[in-house]
Amino acid sequence: MALTDKNRQYNRLHESQRIFLGEDFLLYSDFAKTLYHNFARDLPIIDYHNHLPPVEIAANHQYNNCTEVWLRGDHYKWRAMRTLGIDEKYITGNATDEEKFAKWAQTVPYTLRNPLYHWTHLELQRYFDISELLDATSAQRIYSSTQELLQEEDFRTRGLLKKMNVAVVATTDDPIDDLRHHSKFQSEKEALQLLPSFRPDKAYALEDPKKYSNYLSLLGESVDHEIRIYADLIHALHQRIQFFEQRGCKSADHGLEQFHDFSLGDFDASQLFEQVVAGKLLSPKEIAYFRFETLVHLGRKYHEVGWVQQFHLGALRNTNKRMLTQLGPDTGFDSIGDAQQAKPLANFLNLLDSTNQLTKTIIYNLNPSDNEVFASMIGNFNDGSVKGKLQFGSAWWFLDQKDGMEKQLNSLSNLGLLSCFIGMLTDSRSFLSFPRHEYFRRILCNLLGNDVENGELPADEKWLGKIVSDICYHNVKEYFGY
Amino acid sequence: MALTDKNRQYNRLHESQRIFLGEDFLLYSDFAKTLYHNFARDLPIIDYHNHLPPVEIAANHQYNNCTEVWLRGDHYKWRAMRTLGIDEKYITGNATDEEKFAKWAQTVPYTLRNPLYHWTHLELQRYFDISELLDATSAQRIYSSTQELLQEEDFRTRGLLKKMNVAVVATTDDPIDDLRHHSKFQSEKEALQLLPSFRPDKAYALEDPKKYSNYLSLLGESVDHEIRIYADLIHALHQRIQFFEQRGCKSADHGLEQFHDFSLGDFDASQLFEQVVAGKLLSPKEIAYFRFETLVHLGRKYHEVGWVQQFHLGALRNTNKRMLTQLGPDTGFDSIGDAQQAKPLANFLNLLDSTNQLTKTIIYNLNPSDNEVFASMIGNFNDGSVKGKLQFGSAWWFLDQKDGMEKQLNSLSNLGLLSCFIGMLTDSRSFLSFPRHEYFRRILCNLLGNDVENGELPADEKWLGKIVSDICYHNVKEYFGY
Amino acid sequence: MALTDKNRQYNRLHESQRIFLGEDFLLYSDFAKTLYHNFARDLPIIDYHNHLPPVEIAANHQYNNCTEVWLRGDHYKWRAMRTLGIDEKYITGNATDEEKFAKWAQTVPYTLRNPLYHWTHLELQRYFDISELLDATSAQRIYSSTQELLQEEDFRTRGLLKKMNVAVVATTDDPIDDLRHHSKFQSEKEALQLLPSFRPDKAYALEDPKKYSNYLSLLGESVDHEIRIYADLIHALHQRIQFFEQRGCKSADHGLEQFHDFSLGDFDASQLFEQVVAGKLLSPKEIAYFRFETLVHLGRKYHEVGWVQQFHLGALRNTNKRMLTQLGPDTGFDSIGDAQQAKPLANFLNLLDSTNQLTKTIIYNLNPSDNEVFASMIGNFNDGSVKGKLQFGSAWWFLDQKDGMEKQLNSLSNLGLLSCFIGMLTDSRSFLSFPRHEYFRRILCNLLGNDVENGELPADEKWLGKIVSDICYHNVKEYFGY
Repeated sequence: MALTDKNRQYNRLHESQRIFLGEDFLLYSDFAKTLYHNFARDLPIIDYHNHLPPVEIAANHQYNNCTEVWLRGDHYKWRAMRTLGIDEKYITGNATDEEKFAKWAQTVPYTLRNPLYHWTHLELQRYFDISELLDATSAQRIYSSTQELLQEEDFRTRGLLKKMNVAVVATTDDPIDDLRHHSKFQSEKEALQLLPSFRPDKAYALEDPKKYSNYLSLLGESVDHEIRIYADLIHALHQRIQFFEQRGCKSADHGLEQFHDFSLGDFDASQLFEQVVAGKLLSPKEIAYFRFETLVHLGRKYHEVGWVQQFHLGALRNTNKRMLTQLGPDTGFDSIGDAQQAKPLANFLNLLDSTNQLTKTIIYNLNPSDNEVFASMIGNFNDGSVKGKLQFGSAWWFLDQKDGMEKQLNSLSNLGLLSCFIGMLTDSRSFLSFPRHEYFRRILCNLLGNDVENGELPADEKWLGKIVSDICYHNVKEYFGY
Repeated sequence: MALTDKNRQYNRLHESQRIFLGEDFLLYSDFAKTLYHNFARDLPIIDYHNHLPPVEIAANHQYNNCTEVWLRGDHYKWRAMRTLGIDEKYITGNATDEEKFAKWAQTVPYTLRNPLYHWTHLELQRYFDISELLDATSAQRIYSSTQELLQEEDFRTRGLLKKMNVAVVATTDDPIDDLRHHSKFQSEKEALQLLPSFRPDKAYALEDPKKYSNYLSLLGESVDHEIRIYADLIHALHQRIQFFEQRGCKSADHGLEQFHDFSLGDFDASQLFEQVVAGKLLSPKEIAYFRFETLVHLGRKYHEVGWVQQFHLGALRNTNKRMLTQLGPDTGFDSIGDAQQAKPLANFLNLLDSTNQLTKTIIYNLNPSDNEVFASMIGNFNDGSVKGKLQFGSAWWFLDQKDGMEKQLNSLSNLGLLSCFIGMLTDSRSFLSFPRHEYFRRILCNLLGNDVENGELPADEKWLGKIVSDICYHNVKEYFGY
Repeated sequence: MALTDKNRQYNRLHESQRIFLGEDFLLYSDFAKTLYHNFARDLPIIDYHNHLPPVEIAANHQYNNCTEVWLRGDHYKWRAMRTLGIDEKYITGNATDEEKFAKWAQTVPYTLRNPLYHWTHLELQRYFDISELLDATSAQRIYSSTQELLQEEDFRTRGLLKKMNVAVVATTDDPIDDLRHHSKFQSEKEALQLLPSFRPDKAYALEDPKKYSNYLSLLGESVDHEIRIYADLIHALHQRIQFFEQRGCKSADHGLEQFHDFSLGDFDASQLFEQVVAGKLLSPKEIAYFRFETLVHLGRKYHEVGWVQQFHLGALRNTNKRMLTQLGPDTGFDSIGDAQQAKPLANFLNLLDSTNQLTKTIIYNLNPSDNEVFASMIGNFNDGSVKGKLQFGSAWWFLDQKDGMEKQLNSLSNLGLLSCFIGMLTDSRSFLSFPRHEYFRRILCNLLGNDVENGELPADEKWLGKIVSDICYHNVKEYFGY
């Protein structure tokens, strides 16, 4: 049975029904519309954490077609295609770009209720002005028309960012990175701010001693001294923090399943370092401890230089070893974990706080069952020194959708101060992901508008408009000091 | 104060109020009504997992009264009655069937907002055409009228299934079962398909060495060879899988709290087997390991014969030892657990997948806090070979109600592809439980209808109608190959 | 930008919009309004668990100003102020009462969507008849007018309770308390019942051996015999239970993160007692075991005297050691934990039940992810002896807000019998917290009203009115035997 016909697009059954992806998409009350259109819509975007490749911004890269800019590297789409039963050939294999696009197009109608369905059509609308639904029947037409547009100057990376009114892009970079793309771009004095972030995960990834030793060599080269003992490692990382600082970096980011649980024992990072350099395989709890101690050293340095530290907690990565061998990491085989977070996280924050060296900190959870643990945790370390010093990070990865965002916003509201929230980020590898900020803003305005309609908030447009613009722009600007 | 009067039944206060249990029950938008009435309502039911007694279908059993068909064995109702303070005499004790019915009837108004309240009245309507509310005042009348109806030919088991348009019933059977009731029924060439499922839980239940040895004797008898070492056990189970396969079995099912957590140690199943046969009491982690290794052996065999494997995870059983001694298991003293699931489950699936021996798999959770863990886990092992190869099972047991179903459907939608879902099953011991399929279908249509009304989905009846009928019927038919 | 203007107060944008904090606040259907105004609103309040200081009731204390009665000791407000970046001086420091009030007033508009925002304005309305919004511009005016009112006779403690129609206040008292304030008040024969509750947490708080020894001395004094061995401790607690019983106590309460997990080992309380008295620091699992065994002894005694036992589970306390040193406990640095609850809790309840010595029991959780664990757990120990013998306690502390209450009510409804619920309590240290009962009642009526409007419940006012009044008043009266 063919899945498409004219009716699927933007029609309504009756007057009261809302138009799919219309101007008032996700805005279910008059007050919500007012808040969004008058206060949120036109604010610039500060994307304070993402995985955009700086080289493509520096080079103002041009894409050949929609597969290259949209499907390559997008493991969200890959998972959906595999679930529908599409062969790997058309996903990461050697099919042509057009074939891959056709398979993705065929998948889209089956993604209904998944965020991919909204993202797909929002991105086609916002970047390419295409309001047709993507499916098997429209695939070729859309492939061609987007291919044509991508040849235009303002569809290069910088143009794509400009279209979305992006003011700041903070990428994610390894300590050994020389940041030359950032430097090059910064020297061009564009309106856009392109800043690095410090992501030292490899510096405490002891799982593979051989890989780790190689990494230590590279890190040593970057600071011109050999790393032989643990103190050398910390010293080198401090030097790289200084280097990043000089290139405008304002933040560090870290991905880990959970912090070390001290009920599992206490260790010594220097000794563990010796062992791993000697090629010894460490146990998971030893590795977790080493990471813990290293993060404490790093946290104190971040405090010294005034950075924001971010922690993405709770992912269970590389669950499928067969596909890991075949395709490598970050290809769509990661998952939501259920490790215990509260006590280990409290211990870590407390250790830094006990000497008053806890810098501004954002904690992100991947399991929504942890929302209340995270939303209440931040309150324990807010000490009146900075507005919203501790932040419960925006709904992330698997939770980056309407339901996930609403739950995060509601938990934060109930257990903390929504008004101090620094809002949305893309965390994305794609230049086409920026409508997610719009998505977030609509959802935020809708929640507040709904409260007003229900009499749960007073109908004060000026006040609520200020709160909205704080969350969408002013809070984050002030928090990072952009 | 008397709790009942005429007004309680099916009246409305005003025009816009919906009628209790009316034609459009749970359908809150015009689009939802269209989807349900035009696409879902009349589809046959494939009940791919339940606990119906095959003997009662083979014998076309006739029930004496509503207590026998409705209350006997229904521990959902028993828990409610105990909570209200009703004496065990009227629940599982020696009161007469009519007395027991009266006590249940008296309980019903106090079950409001519990699924029992909807199920009760839906079942009275659908099977007996009774629209009166059940309570103390209507008890006797309803007892009599249902008793009369139960004497009729089409109120025997096969008639009850026919009324509900049931096409397939897959029961749950022990490996030692000779499946003679299935064989007898199959020989009659009825339109209904009655198939067994393989449930080998007793084959790795080492908690009681004596009971286990007895079970091994019976299993040995069923394959005509003594089971002396672990390899004998695996061999016997393989033989029984072949036997079940020949009787039309397409699936195995397993109930366990969680998979083995390897951070608790590694063991050897052959040695553990020797110990338990020698009468030794094993530790919980040894038992969990033994089950793990056995499930890996079984999983490989299921893959070989092309079955679906099902895992019901997360129940905490037999919490009340006093009542267990008095009444035995499955009498209403089980609970929702909070064991960690993500890593152990990933390890199990990965082990089977690593040799490409992971068969189609359904995972069910009992704690809704695990919804996102399960909904994201399936994506890790969908490899493009089969549409919806890994399934996040329908809301189960305590979660088999509107709230539980909506949460499962929403988690699945947000983290996977709802369109590939195989939908509802009763998991029930009762022939009167089949309106739960209707309940599920209404809820599904309502969610989609609501999205359309809100402009979150395009108003394409043909497309959404296809998705609905896939989830309610076609996906499951194709998945199991009925 | 000024945050306030006239429009913010109680205005509406259009006819259909609900008025902020109006008469029908939180009541979103006609049926909900009927239930609330006709059945719930005027019922007396039984506050069966709170932390009000008995001395202030006995002395009929008069407050100087709103800071004293409203801000002092209210760590909910303190956390909000610290989050906004307000200096500790204005929170717990040496600023004047008026300065502190001004800082709180300035914070209020930033608490939108947090329960503080509703509580604040509801309390101003209900106690002081002030419908103006509190913020920087109204701060001084409201400070003055409340200060004036607080000089009046009926704004002393007893008057404040009377205003809210409070019939019973059950405080929380240490076993060594001589209960003289309760005795004094009881001798006055006021309409209000003021009763103690037994909170023996210090009797098993082995974390600090020195503090513990001091406590044992005081406990020994209270019963006139020295506590040298574990049996002495149990004996002394039994004596104090008798003493409390004679002063009208009907309940004990306990705060703990989780019950002892037997997978962590088995110990001997007598030996642990010897060690701690000798000054030895015990491990967390030893302390947990000691608490477990002591709670079993206590539980059997509670059963003997017919008390209700309450358990507040799941808090992670004193996470911030720097602030703990500075300000002491209960100052806003506690958090929601994620310890495992199901199995340890089942083991504890089962142990008491196995000898039929499980008394009426209320279990409260702090992490909403545990709602379903708790809501299903109670069903395992309801044995038909008492209506609602086991209770899933009302949403507590961080969860004491609309979202938390709705989730608790829905979980309880889906997994147990809402109709047997004993409803709301303040758990508060403040005489101004009693509108939370109104808040709860509105939310309860709204859920039921919504079900009626949707056709999920029959529109039977008499029946639903009875259920509502049972939950708000009659159930708890009967349960405790007030």
